[in-house]
Amino acid sequence: MRAMVLDAPHTPLRLAELPVPQPGVGEILLRVEACGVCRTDLHLVDGELPEPRLPVIPGHEIVGRVVALGAGASGFAPGQRVGVPWLGWTCGHCGYCAEGRENLCDDARFTGYQLPGGYAEYTVADQRFCFALPDSQPAAELAPLLCAGLIGYRALSMAGSAQRIGLYGFGAAAHILAQVLAYQRRPFYAFTRAGDDASQAFARELGATWAGAAGENAPDELDAALIFAPAGELVPAALRQLRKGGTVVCAGIHMSDIPSFPYEILWGERVIRSVANLTREDGRRFLEIAAAAPIHTHIERFPLERANDALLALRRGQIQGAAVLVPA
Amino acid sequence: MRAMVLDAPHTPLRLAELPVPQPGVGEILLRVEACGVCRTDLHLVDGELPEPRLPVIPGHEIVGRVVALGAGASGFAPGQRVGVPWLGWTCGHCGYCAEGRENLCDDARFTGYQLPGGYAEYTVADQRFCFALPDSQPAAELAPLLCAGLIGYRALSMAGSAQRIGLYGFGAAAHILAQVLAYQRRPFYAFTRAGDDASQAFARELGATWAGAAGENAPDELDAALIFAPAGELVPAALRQLRKGGTVVCAGIHMSDIPSFPYEILWGERVIRSVANLTREDGRRFLEIAAAAPIHTHIERFPLERANDALLALRRGQIQGAAVLVPA
Amino acid sequence: MRAMVLDAPHTPLRLAELPVPQPGVGEILLRVEACGVCRTDLHLVDGELPEPRLPVIPGHEIVGRVVALGAGASGFAPGQRVGVPWLGWTCGHCGYCAEGRENLCDDARFTGYQLPGGYAEYTVADQRFCFALPDSQPAAELAPLLCAGLIGYRALSMAGSAQRIGLYGFGAAAHILAQVLAYQRRPFYAFTRAGDDASQAFARELGATWAGAAGENAPDELDAALIFAPAGELVPAALRQLRKGGTVVCAGIHMSDIPSFPYEILWGERVIRSVANLTREDGRRFLEIAAAAPIHTHIERFPLERANDALLALRRGQIQGAAVLVPA
Amino acid sequence: MRAMVLDAPHTPLRLAELPVPQPGVGEILLRVEACGVCRTDLHLVDGELPEPRLPVIPGHEIVGRVVALGAGASGFAPGQRVGVPWLGWTCGHCGYCAEGRENLCDDARFTGYQLPGGYAEYTVADQRFCFALPDSQPAAELAPLLCAGLIGYRALSMAGSAQRIGLYGFGAAAHILAQVLAYQRRPFYAFTRAGDDASQAFARELGATWAGAAGENAPDELDAALIFAPAGELVPAALRQLRKGGTVVCAGIHMSDIPSFPYEILWGERVIRSVANLTREDGRRFLEIAAAAPIHTHIERFPLERANDALLALRRGQIQGAAVLVPA
Repeated sequence: MRAMVLDAPHTPLRLAELPVPQPGVGEILLRVEACGVCRTDLHLVDGELPEPRLPVIPGHEIVGRVVALGAGASGFAPGQRVGVPWLGWTCGHCGYCAEGRENLCDDARFTGYQLPGGYAEYTVADQRFCFALPDSQPAAELAPLLCAGLIGYRALSMAGSAQRIGLYGFGAAAHILAQVLAYQRRPFYAFTRAGDDASQAFARELGATWAGAAGENAPDELDAALIFAPAGELVPAALRQLRKGGTVVCAGIHMSDIPSFPYEILWGERVIRSVANLTREDGRRFLEIAAAAPIHTHIERFPLERANDALLALRRGQIQGAAVLVPA
Repeated sequence: MRAMVLDAPHTPLRLAELPVPQPGVGEILLRVEACGVCRTDLHLVDGELPEPRLPVIPGHEIVGRVVALGAGASGFAPGQRVGVPWLGWTCGHCGYCAEGRENLCDDARFTGYQLPGGYAEYTVADQRFCFALPDSQPAAELAPLLCAGLIGYRALSMAGSAQRIGLYGFGAAAHILAQVLAYQRRPFYAFTRAGDDASQAFARELGATWAGAAGENAPDELDAALIFAPAGELVPAALRQLRKGGTVVCAGIHMSDIPSFPYEILWGERVIRSVANLTREDGRRFLEIAAAAPIHTHIERFPLERANDALLALRRGQIQGAAVLVPA
Repeated sequence: MRAMVLDAPHTPLRLAELPVPQPGVGEILLRVEACGVCRTDLHLVDGELPEPRLPVIPGHEIVGRVVALGAGASGFAPGQRVGVPWLGWTCGHCGYCAEGRENLCDDARFTGYQLPGGYAEYTVADQRFCFALPDSQPAAELAPLLCAGLIGYRALSMAGSAQRIGLYGFGAAAHILAQVLAYQRRPFYAFTRAGDDASQAFARELGATWAGAAGENAPDELDAALIFAPAGELVPAALRQLRKGGTVVCAGIHMSDIPSFPYEILWGERVIRSVANLTREDGRRFLEIAAAAPIHTHIERFPLERANDALLALRRGQIQGAAVLVPA
Repeated sequence: MRAMVLDAPHTPLRLAELPVPQPGVGEILLRVEACGVCRTDLHLVDGELPEPRLPVIPGHEIVGRVVALGAGASGFAPGQRVGVPWLGWTCGHCGYCAEGRENLCDDARFTGYQLPGGYAEYTVADQRFCFALPDSQPAAELAPLLCAGLIGYRALSMAGSAQRIGLYGFGAAAHILAQVLAYQRRPFYAFTRAGDDASQAFARELGATWAGAAGENAPDELDAALIFAPAGELVPAALRQLRKGGTVVCAGIHMSDIPSFPYEILWGERVIRSVANLTREDGRRFLEIAAAAPIHTHIERFPLERANDALLALRRGQIQGAAVLVPA
């Protein structure tokens, strides 16, 4: 099978011809229909994430069809459509797993990072971490739900019952979450890079109450602000938009340093928190909402072998919505 | 009656002879038995809090005896011992009040700040915000429970079921909270200024698993860290001691700027939050625990007219435990 | 328009020609696509519910298309498909409404009972209590979701995180809930009238771990039992199947007397509770799951003017799944 | 040592001279200061509880002083006052223990039932299930807190945030709970046997809003009703006093049959539940409140060797408050 492989940070992905993998105990073999390109993949290529298992096939927003079942893998049927997310395996018994926070598992393994990912024609996955997906939408449009959608949903759930939500960075995650918020009739406010009129217009089209630059003031105090852009200076900027008791959630896996800020903008029981990974319960809940809303992702398709171009376009901010790789 | 009055920031308190106040509707008149001296009083004198109602009698850790009841104030009996805390009045109908977060009430009024406080021989208070107190302990030892104790308890409750707790700054609040933690059999770790051997020894005496300087590493990862010292640099220091999913709680009403820090130490669903004021429910819960433990505060008594000396000693870090004013 | 009207208890519904209603402030006018026939309609006809507003058009599982908007009704667009449930109006400010239990509102008004229902070609509804519905399924198959589905879902949510669920009475509600449970991978056990092999086979087909008569013992202790049949003797029967701490939920609006039973079968922190009506939050959550699962209802269609025949078939236990009225 | 022993149901307790027990691993040896006489002891003598470990020393409201520590029992110091409750041992790993419901543990052992109790001069107990008690009250007045107080508190906690509380049967448990409710400023209503003027007067003295016979109507709808009398007919009687959404809690370990009742009085999301045993968390929370309130029990002292007389007086309804055995 063909796959795109990362051999070392700061090098382009290499197109390789590899044997189709065999599903082990509890695993399923999938023919990849589509795989989303996530900012985390960029951080991986740029050496900003610790200890990847190199060489590695990136990609953790995988939509595929079940081709074969490993021993004991009876949860899915051949031909069924399945999604594989970032969280690929957990130990199940550490303190975090025991208390329902498997996203923090000390020994967690992540798809496309320590486990083989979806920048390939086939992949295998532990069936316990996969999700059933509907046949009713194109695979490429479902792929971004599996990380951009999920991490956005977890970030939102950290904001509790907050009504007025700020979204900082209006890319793959935010454009999905905007649809969740519209479905839930919660008003949202989009903050983009200064001058990014296209993203602001896109946000308004999806129902934003207001869209502007990150430095501007929204017309209302926010109950919560979710930061999807990897820029630490957005943390104090977002704190300044919050009402008392509000929450800033940093949703990225990587971010530049958070600058110094005065205590007064944290005071009033405001909260700063980060979100890490996902739990399977997040996935189950989010995919229910995605089906009910329903969510339509805006995507740009790239052939598998053009993964390096997709990453470059993402780095340059040229993708409206999400980039998705599609094997020929 | 005699009272200590603040006329303007950055001036000493002035000893004044004032008429005994009359209790209004729903208010009670108290003869003050003791009033704690809180760091917030220092911030008030130093002009670090916005919009005090000047001139003002400071003091919001008041223990007194009911002398007279205003119209409709039937919740307490004459002669009963009562505590008056920082939260002196709330509107009862704003969004915060309605959702049980009266500590954030938009129109809240605070004792010894916008309402007359306890640096005096008599004071009046809205009975709905007062707490019944036991006769079994000296009034001066109960006084610090009403803010140092309460704010510490609210800070702790923000840390959920965290087991290993770091306490940054081992003064009035921390030495009370240490006893709560010992009673609850939760291990705690005391972080003091470098070289403050007396405070470290005091913490160990109260059961600290470990005590050291704020720059040192505790022998265990912490589940939560509560910061009582007004020093913003403790926030990243405390984050570095936390396990994934842990929480830093800033318990003070004022703090110096929080310095820049790398995202990695927030990552892993760590949380930074501030605590503001108290709710009556906090008070009820905390005073139950204080009675059951029971809590013994370490205090240094000052005559009422020596309030300026008490504030100076607090500023210089010369108080072990809490300073308390006692009318002659 | 044509409508079926109940003039008095114990009389057949009467086919009437009525003017098309006008939507008032905040209301929407719907052309009815389908309306489910619910056991509650039978209780209404049989005079078992107090104080209906007679004459009344029954029917509270309404799927319709928006035809016109009353003043201020901007939540839906003309042409959009909408569902109208049993809960048609609440006061919004009584104690129950204030605490999020609007299903218990003292002044609630119910569709097809105190408000005109869906046994008609057109109806009006307060838009705040309507749900957006997808176009992707036939209207008649969606109709039973609006009460049988919703009440089953609320009953299930009363059972918390219970895993092994008993379903007593395998009709409209249970056959929908069975699909929810299969989707959530929770095992369920169906209890039917003795000898009702068809219902037992239907339950097995939908994934029941076990199906049998209500008097039999299931092979496992149950965590919860949900009773959809209006027979009080099922309460002690279900208690006997429960593990300690388990819950019996009576989901019907009417039931025969609960017979005497020994305390031992309630002991062990077992719980008996009834479920009443629904909240809009129930509806939102359930319809998300129904879309994600997805749920397929088994229905038997009747022309609108044959409503009396549909009620008779329901009374006789001749409906497998749910009966639905469809205007010509 | 002297002890009162039950050899078989329906026989009087026998005064025996037994060796002082030795504390095993993790156990403590206590010199009994006082032991309450609980209605459960009556059920035990009357053969109404299954499978006691006979012969047995009854008594599970034990206040004692630590005399000796078994190996590894470092939680208490010699001379310290300790309480031993009904829950004497749990397995710690069954499903119930794992989910924090240790009161339902499948292998739980109970004091004075399967483990030796406190109708004796000495007893041993697993230190993990004991509570530290204050020295400030007489031992005999603390004893009833350990079961009557605790089970009442657990029953109350099952009623959530209910405000208006009915108490059925005004004996040991109810007179303690009345003081908790007065402390929490929740109104309560006492229902006694018809004609029991003494209990009704006692209830009013403790602050009851209303007191009357179980057949009468209270002047207000109740949010919850807690039944301490072992009479099943109180369940429908209490249901009829409840507002919608209210809860009846059966707090006894034994009760006569619950008679038939119409569904209408359960309808409206009313709930019937039983309470079983206690958890250690219940004990910790309740003893905090008991210290803060503080609770004063009304007791009648009996010498240890008059245990049979104490049981008889309890059976005849001649005890106002609680009976307590005191070794000479």
